[in-house]
Amino acid sequence: MSVVFEPIGFVQTQARTLPRHWSVSDVEGDLVLDASYIRGLDSMSPGDRIVVLFHFHESPPFSMDSLMQRPPHGNQGKKGVFCTCSPYRPNAIGFSIVTVLALNGNSIRVRGIDMRNGTPILDIKPDVRPS
Amino acid sequence: MSVVFEPIGFVQTQARTLPRHWSVSDVEGDLVLDASYIRGLDSMSPGDRIVVLFHFHESPPFSMDSLMQRPPHGNQGKKGVFCTCSPYRPNAIGFSIVTVLALNGNSIRVRGIDMRNGTPILDIKPDVRPS
Repeated sequence: MSVVFEPIGFVQTQARTLPRHWSVSDVEGDLVLDASYIRGLDSMSPGDRIVVLFHFHESPPFSMDSLMQRPPHGNQGKKGVFCTCSPYRPNAIGFSIVTVLALNGNSIRVRGIDMRNGTPILDIKPDVRPS
Repeated sequence: MSVVFEPIGFVQTQARTLPRHWSVSDVEGDLVLDASYIRGLDSMSPGDRIVVLFHFHESPPFSMDSLMQRPPHGNQGKKGVFCTCSPYRPNAIGFSIVTVLALNGNSIRVRGIDMRNGTPILDIKPDVRPS
């Protein structure tokens, strides 16, 4: 029943401190895909908002003792992990929405980074919302 | 470098035909998590909008010949796969945003289903948007 994915690329950013969430991030960085995927970016343009799915690769293996967690921001009590954006979760998949600034071959310059340098990218999708 | 995930549950829906995208879906169904994850839902409420990450488990293995695809809707030409929501992609991860209607133990009744019955669920997150 396991599902196995291979990273399609990696996040590159020189930011030393990262915002807590993409929705409050002005940090710039690059999504550098494996060169073999370059045609998969065809028709992407500056200004596009894209969904980036990635692996929280520095999170330790999840323990079921952590199904409830206290979010680090705000004065909230504990919440179920599926009601939080915690990187420490049963399947360590991250999700951020960023804005494309420029395309350079297999590298996408974006604004809105909240991922650490070296984060493995699993997928990129358009941010489709009802109009 | 592989990343391995285990499904946390499965989609149940009796819909025979599914809309092409969650953003145009009124289909109801249930996200049935493994009972061991029930505490991970603590503080989820009807009306919440949640991000569901899932495995396109019926997609065949990806071929690099398909890095450009013609979306089935609209009169568009071929686009890079990362600019489409195609279920046929390098890592077959799906992403839908649905609305919670009711909670019943480890089962979440939702509206907005565009996944097939039996789809493995990988993660659930709150739909956090800048206010």
